Amino acid sequence: MTTRRELANAVRALAMDAVEAANSGHPGMPMGMADIAEVLWNDHLKFNPTNPKWPNRDRFVLSNGHGSMLQYALLHLTGYDLPMDQLKRFRQLHSKTAGHPEASETPGVETTTGPLGQGLANSVGFALAEKVLAAHFNRPGHAIVDHHTYVFVGDGCLMEGISHEVASLAGTWKLGKLIAVYDDNNISIDGEVEGWFTDDTPKRFEAYGWNVIRGVDGHDSEAVKKAFAAATAQSDKPTLICCKTIIGFGAPHKQGKEESHGAALGKAEVAAARDVLDWRYAPFDIPAEIYAGWDKKKVGAEREQQWNDAFAKYEAAYPELAAEFRRRTAGELPADWASKSQAYVDKMQAEGPDVASRKASQMTLDAFGPLLPELVGGSADLAGSNLTMWKGSKNITGPDGNYVHYGVREFGMTAIASGLALHGGLLPYDGTFLVFSDYARNAVRMSCLIPSHVVHVYTHDSIGLGEDGPTHQPIEHLGSLRLIPNNRVWRPCDAVESAVSWKVAIERKGAPSCLIFSRQTLKHQQRTAQQVADITRGAYVLSDPADTKFKAILIATGSEVELAMEAARTLAQQNVPVRVVSMPCTEEFDAQPLEYREAILPSWCRARVAVEAASVDFWGKYVGLDGAVVGMTTFGASAPAPALFENFAFTVAHVVDSVKRVIG
Amino acid sequence: MTTRRELANAVRALAMDAVEAANSGHPGMPMGMADIAEVLWNDHLKFNPTNPKWPNRDRFVLSNGHGSMLQYALLHLTGYDLPMDQLKRFRQLHSKTAGHPEASETPGVETTTGPLGQGLANSVGFALAEKVLAAHFNRPGHAIVDHHTYVFVGDGCLMEGISHEVASLAGTWKLGKLIAVYDDNNISIDGEVEGWFTDDTPKRFEAYGWNVIRGVDGHDSEAVKKAFAAATAQSDKPTLICCKTIIGFGAPHKQGKEESHGAALGKAEVAAARDVLDWRYAPFDIPAEIYAGWDKKKVGAEREQQWNDAFAKYEAAYPELAAEFRRRTAGELPADWASKSQAYVDKMQAEGPDVASRKASQMTLDAFGPLLPELVGGSADLAGSNLTMWKGSKNITGPDGNYVHYGVREFGMTAIASGLALHGGLLPYDGTFLVFSDYARNAVRMSCLIPSHVVHVYTHDSIGLGEDGPTHQPIEHLGSLRLIPNNRVWRPCDAVESAVSWKVAIERKGAPSCLIFSRQTLKHQQRTAQQVADITRGAYVLSDPADTKFKAILIATGSEVELAMEAARTLAQQNVPVRVVSMPCTEEFDAQPLEYREAILPSWCRARVAVEAASVDFWGKYVGLDGAVVGMTTFGASAPAPALFENFAFTVAHVVDSVKRVIG
Repeated sequence: MTTRRELANAVRALAMDAVEAANSGHPGMPMGMADIAEVLWNDHLKFNPTNPKWPNRDRFVLSNGHGSMLQYALLHLTGYDLPMDQLKRFRQLHSKTAGHPEASETPGVETTTGPLGQGLANSVGFALAEKVLAAHFNRPGHAIVDHHTYVFVGDGCLMEGISHEVASLAGTWKLGKLIAVYDDNNISIDGEVEGWFTDDTPKRFEAYGWNVIRGVDGHDSEAVKKAFAAATAQSDKPTLICCKTIIGFGAPHKQGKEESHGAALGKAEVAAARDVLDWRYAPFDIPAEIYAGWDKKKVGAEREQQWNDAFAKYEAAYPELAAEFRRRTAGELPADWASKSQAYVDKMQAEGPDVASRKASQMTLDAFGPLLPELVGGSADLAGSNLTMWKGSKNITGPDGNYVHYGVREFGMTAIASGLALHGGLLPYDGTFLVFSDYARNAVRMSCLIPSHVVHVYTHDSIGLGEDGPTHQPIEHLGSLRLIPNNRVWRPCDAVESAVSWKVAIERKGAPSCLIFSRQTLKHQQRTAQQVADITRGAYVLSDPADTKFKAILIATGSEVELAMEAARTLAQQNVPVRVVSMPCTEEFDAQPLEYREAILPSWCRARVAVEAASVDFWGKYVGLDGAVVGMTTFGASAPAPALFENFAFTVAHVVDSVKRVIG
Repeated sequence: MTTRRELANAVRALAMDAVEAANSGHPGMPMGMADIAEVLWNDHLKFNPTNPKWPNRDRFVLSNGHGSMLQYALLHLTGYDLPMDQLKRFRQLHSKTAGHPEASETPGVETTTGPLGQGLANSVGFALAEKVLAAHFNRPGHAIVDHHTYVFVGDGCLMEGISHEVASLAGTWKLGKLIAVYDDNNISIDGEVEGWFTDDTPKRFEAYGWNVIRGVDGHDSEAVKKAFAAATAQSDKPTLICCKTIIGFGAPHKQGKEESHGAALGKAEVAAARDVLDWRYAPFDIPAEIYAGWDKKKVGAEREQQWNDAFAKYEAAYPELAAEFRRRTAGELPADWASKSQAYVDKMQAEGPDVASRKASQMTLDAFGPLLPELVGGSADLAGSNLTMWKGSKNITGPDGNYVHYGVREFGMTAIASGLALHGGLLPYDGTFLVFSDYARNAVRMSCLIPSHVVHVYTHDSIGLGEDGPTHQPIEHLGSLRLIPNNRVWRPCDAVESAVSWKVAIERKGAPSCLIFSRQTLKHQQRTAQQVADITRGAYVLSDPADTKFKAILIATGSEVELAMEAARTLAQQNVPVRVVSMPCTEEFDAQPLEYREAILPSWCRARVAVEAASVDFWGKYVGLDGAVVGMTTFGASAPAPALFENFAFTVAHVVDSVKRVIG
């Protein structure tokens, strides 16, 4: 009979061997948490290795993602499609075993981790999603949504501020099916943590309303098993299991020290560890009895089959709910979505309201919300400013909840939203002022990298926010969000473009968008049906001279489109014909065929002026060396918005002068 | 005799009246905290209104900066140079009373606040600076550095993750002279906080090792006074005073509600509040006896004089220490700095080591550190990777400490560093991986806006970090840091440019720089003395064809400079003469006179190729519509660095092709 320790040692050996082969990686954490992981994955975690997307699986997240070899070893041993060859190619180009776990690369990895604390935040999102979906879909006797979320966290995760934000929310939301395991090994990269981490962590989590299980020996499988049993018995509080572990457990000279954390142990130490662990097998050699002890293909398939049977009964009793569940977990939009959403866009073009684009966003939510029960909104304590609540918004904590009051927690909010999206069944949007996207910055990046289908709503998009002043006025944010790979940043100029931006963001399955809205009122723009259709292409000609060829191109976004249009009219009166291009989404435009781009911004026209109340530097790629940018080169100031636009030269006169200058 | 409540009501009235005049702002917090502020500023805070820069003043920080009218009222009433006319022009263009307090605009404002939680973080920096300077300078019987730091925080500050990071550190560092006052008014913008903020905050702060004073009635001046007395008596723990307050205290229909938080109360409510408060004076009318009760000009001058007398005795006993104290608090560099630092730069050029620029950075610290006792370094748990420790680094908690182990807390670190800088007497640098500048993003912005003299050290600057993969590989970060106004981002190509970047950053009095260093080894480049001198101009010609005019310009930074040089040599062999421009700092280059810029990048040459292992989008401003960029358009991948550079086409062949293509 294979012992638990032997099973765990397989993980340790694979971690040592893979790191050794790569000569890069983190053996310490997998070796330290192997015993805990063995108990969790063999005795508690519900999953089916042959169907990593089974909707009711337990979710497992490695927030201390540098210990990726722990997860790869577990996936391999239990029977996921991650063959040994992949483990041998740990951290090599085009392998499925990246340095940190990546959801887009490896079956069974629920989310991409590595940036510390964010895995915990994603987990809070997974657990909230489970709770929300259970409330939406479960019926008496039919608990079709019923699973736990487990997350491993290290000292680093708990030092990060985001751990505070999301643990606080998990406590408030009473996420009883969230179980976090704290790998309390007393070591971070700089050494023993006493010098920089003296929190009483159990007490801190009790202050958040968590159930805390203290002082578990992370190498005593029975103690760990008892702790998981106690945690799963708890239903109205999230649980933190504090496990004392030895980093690099088994490596005789490096265990318990930083040396085992982030580098290969070295041949001699690996050999010595094999002796200590009594592991008599060659590198990457796992004997059949060990595989047999880990294999979860059969039991996993049985578990899923039980659920499939239960779901069939549910489907018989509630066919419409079941169909809706299938649709939503598949991430498909309703059948009537395309026509109804387009009808709303066309209605806006016909009605032509002059409204702030944040208001246009809310109007869009009022139109789209009833079509999309999967929408889960929220804001970081700015619901009334971001206008992220719509008529159908209900607090997430109640039945049919679809709106999250995240409190003043932008980073936590954004990473939780990714968790909501990755869980499946929900389409989350979050909200804050554009300037405070900074607080969430790496979670926005992660939503692009994972990627996750989240809509980030950022209002108060320029100096146009006025009196709150430079601390609240974004300058560099538009440009810097556009620089993130795989992002789509929309800055609509009126209610029509606002509606289109929402439509496109909702349809961008599996990937995020940032929707940037104004505080102040924006004028409606006239468009033909073709122009309305071309908004989705990211940029289009909003206005051309009537009977003559243009001599210059004005490119504008958002609130500056009406300024560009006014300047174009003034220039026309002065016999300077110009084209106006509205460019709500630069990335979408860049993705168009050359022919389309050339039609909008023909190469022959070098007299180009970009107008955007944001950093000028971004626009060089469109206006080139002969063009000009009417934009910001400094921080803003505190004053009413009209005074600021005047002060920073967002005036018809200045735009007109700029055009004349580039025409020469 | 004027009562405490009457004094406090003056603050309330000014807050109401100024917000009313601006029809914008936040009256609720000043009205809620007026009684607490009255006790603090009249009975405890040591300051001299006529010399806001007195080095030994107590520091006061309004972390809940939206309540700016509280601070402006206090500054005005106690006698700072902030006349009533400025209060009447609250939130107007070019006034000294911005929407949120700005250190650069208003005398007596220690730091710029508004982005929640960061004021608390700055305060931890102020308190740490006091402790460090006291250890450096005080001698038995001569406590010349001996002051408290007071900070007001709201619910929002305590929800933000950064509050966790910095409160944890303050506890670990036993900052006994840090006193935080929690404005526990139960309201945030979305309403009553129960739905999203249920922390047991006192318990949480006890878990950080703080002294917590619970349940103080923030409208009972005697209770508040007792709490401050208890807090100042505490010397080995920071103190959190939890004050129950009523937001908008005195406004009969809006107090205790969100309505009083962020908008003018309206004429009727202001009139009603005047009745409730028994405040019988016209808007902006403060009677003489109220001014008399607040005036601190005389007592402040006396306090400073006592300190000046004490300092004179210190100076007599320790003339060298006193001179050093004067130099450092004035922010002046040592007399021998210029010559010795330049000598080191020249030595590097002569010796020409091939080293990673992070190593070159550490070598520079070894050379500059002994010259600059004001240097206080640190890293967010990456000391051994960032190489931010030098031979003279000593833990901050010991005597002569100059190195901070911040733990895994990038945001807190960065805002604490601003506090260290703003205090005076210290020159802080912080450190993390470039990708994790994201976690600190708004604090980096704030260091540019406040501004504060901090050097941000960011290593592992591209896909060149290798196996850790895309979660750890910066792509958009170089460009997006460059977009922040008033920033200077240096990405040196070898040990010489690395030394220059440090020299320039240290000499950039009052403003920050970001120094971007590689993980991998970079080749030394040959330079003339003029070329070495021109590095400080941000860009310079590193290489021109020998006997012919160039046909194209290669612009490169950091690790890609050697690639550009190699490509140039290959092109020369193929009779394509090109210029190579090394551009370590785009902002510094942009600030040069047109003549210099034209000499480096002449307008006639449109065949330009920028080479940087980062987002291509930023480079449009230099290469224009006819040029090309060899850069990144996607996230990176997990693999050894050489494989990644090859995979993402950072190869001589690709650069050569790109040049040929733009020559056409």
